[in-house]
Amino acid sequence: MTVLTLGPAGTVSHDLATRLYGDDIELLPTIRSIIARVASGSGRGLVPIENSETGGVGETLQGLMEFEVSITAEAYMPVRHHLAARYDPSRLSVVYAHPQTHEQCSIFLDNLGVEVVHTSSNAASAVAMQRNENAGAIISEMAARIYSLPIAVRDVQNRRDNTTRFVEISPLPRDLAGCTKCSLLVDPEIDRVGLLADILGVFARRGINLTRIESRPSRRGIGKYIFFIDLEISEGWLEAEEELRGMTNLRELGCYPRLEVPGV
Amino acid sequence: MTVLTLGPAGTVSHDLATRLYGDDIELLPTIRSIIARVASGSGRGLVPIENSETGGVGETLQGLMEFEVSITAEAYMPVRHHLAARYDPSRLSVVYAHPQTHEQCSIFLDNLGVEVVHTSSNAASAVAMQRNENAGAIISEMAARIYSLPIAVRDVQNRRDNTTRFVEISPLPRDLAGCTKCSLLVDPEIDRVGLLADILGVFARRGINLTRIESRPSRRGIGKYIFFIDLEISEGWLEAEEELRGMTNLRELGCYPRLEVPGV
Repeated sequence: MTVLTLGPAGTVSHDLATRLYGDDIELLPTIRSIIARVASGSGRGLVPIENSETGGVGETLQGLMEFEVSITAEAYMPVRHHLAARYDPSRLSVVYAHPQTHEQCSIFLDNLGVEVVHTSSNAASAVAMQRNENAGAIISEMAARIYSLPIAVRDVQNRRDNTTRFVEISPLPRDLAGCTKCSLLVDPEIDRVGLLADILGVFARRGINLTRIESRPSRRGIGKYIFFIDLEISEGWLEAEEELRGMTNLRELGCYPRLEVPGV
Repeated sequence: MTVLTLGPAGTVSHDLATRLYGDDIELLPTIRSIIARVASGSGRGLVPIENSETGGVGETLQGLMEFEVSITAEAYMPVRHHLAARYDPSRLSVVYAHPQTHEQCSIFLDNLGVEVVHTSSNAASAVAMQRNENAGAIISEMAARIYSLPIAVRDVQNRRDNTTRFVEISPLPRDLAGCTKCSLLVDPEIDRVGLLADILGVFARRGINLTRIESRPSRRGIGKYIFFIDLEISEGWLEAEEELRGMTNLRELGCYPRLEVPGV
């Protein structure tokens, strides 16, 4: 079954999809289009959901809110950024970088002291560098290979452990065998003092570990939120979900195992 | 005292700053540079912190984590996006839009059916349109005025109540007179089952309303978070903060009033 992920060629998503699924991959231009296609039943998808430096990926969280898809696996991909340059990097006139990549490599780029120009994606940085003899770009190893650009300085990201967590999404949920985590979407609709404390208490009382909680705009006006909650499957989790259903709107986004990533 | 905010000319930040503070404004290229300058004592800053459609602004939250500045006011700015075009919009070859603007105007743009090309800012969309006779751009009224571009369709955002919340930041905290809210930064450092439930319980037990809670990467590795919490000042809030200090690392980012925005 074709796996849909984020293009253009050379994105971290493309790199990870190749490692996990081989060659039956289709690259789409936006996360939203991937999730919409999965919801329509045409394949699985692989999308980034959070990064250790920059946090949740809004487009993915929004897509999970809007479309009826299930999370069926997660995978953790180390993110490595390299400076591509044709000569001495300190003499470059400009370095192209996606704003998030810039943020993730801010220490190196601040020290380099060359003007940084923002682009719409890491692949766009590579394309911009191809067209400008005096420019460098912050790109991945895969992008350097695809766009034939020489890497001058490796691993310019602020932290060695920069990691992006991806989720595999499918039209239908998978069975529970092998699953270690579940993701929930809680929409309180009517807010009241202490509601979130009560929601979290349902898990805390049973000793269930929440690995992540993220608030997102409900799009019912500023100051109104929904919550993404990830839990580790352990004794009492089904009972906890049942209790939660009595208190608030709850959607189970999926239960899933963690995939090992070959070659990282 | 000069107010530093996000340029280039015509951003929503620029528009709001002009309404709130008049002409003594300096436009800087990044949110990080604004917060750094405020921390060094050279002026106040005005930065976006969350949007009703797209959620928290990562660069601002990160800057508040890193730099010693105080939030001294908040303001809510309606966000209106317009399609600038020189002729019948359906015959445009391309529409320039910032990715977040695209997301906020997705319904209109999907219906329009013209290719959307992403840019690094709304002002960059205006500049790109200036250079391309057959292009349109999604921009603000202020940007249309500054860059002399004709507006073809007004209010193309998905929701009429699209709003961005801004915070004013200063080198030092303000006095409590007139303040209605406080923002806290909670860094649990050592995680345990139920910790966040206990933290929220401190407020819930006293009937203190939390208007927002947002998790962000702690940058100590994926799956480790810090929390931004906003509370409404009401009886017992100082006592609650005191109790919290005994449980976890707590930094008060500031207590502040809400500013009325002239002319919106």
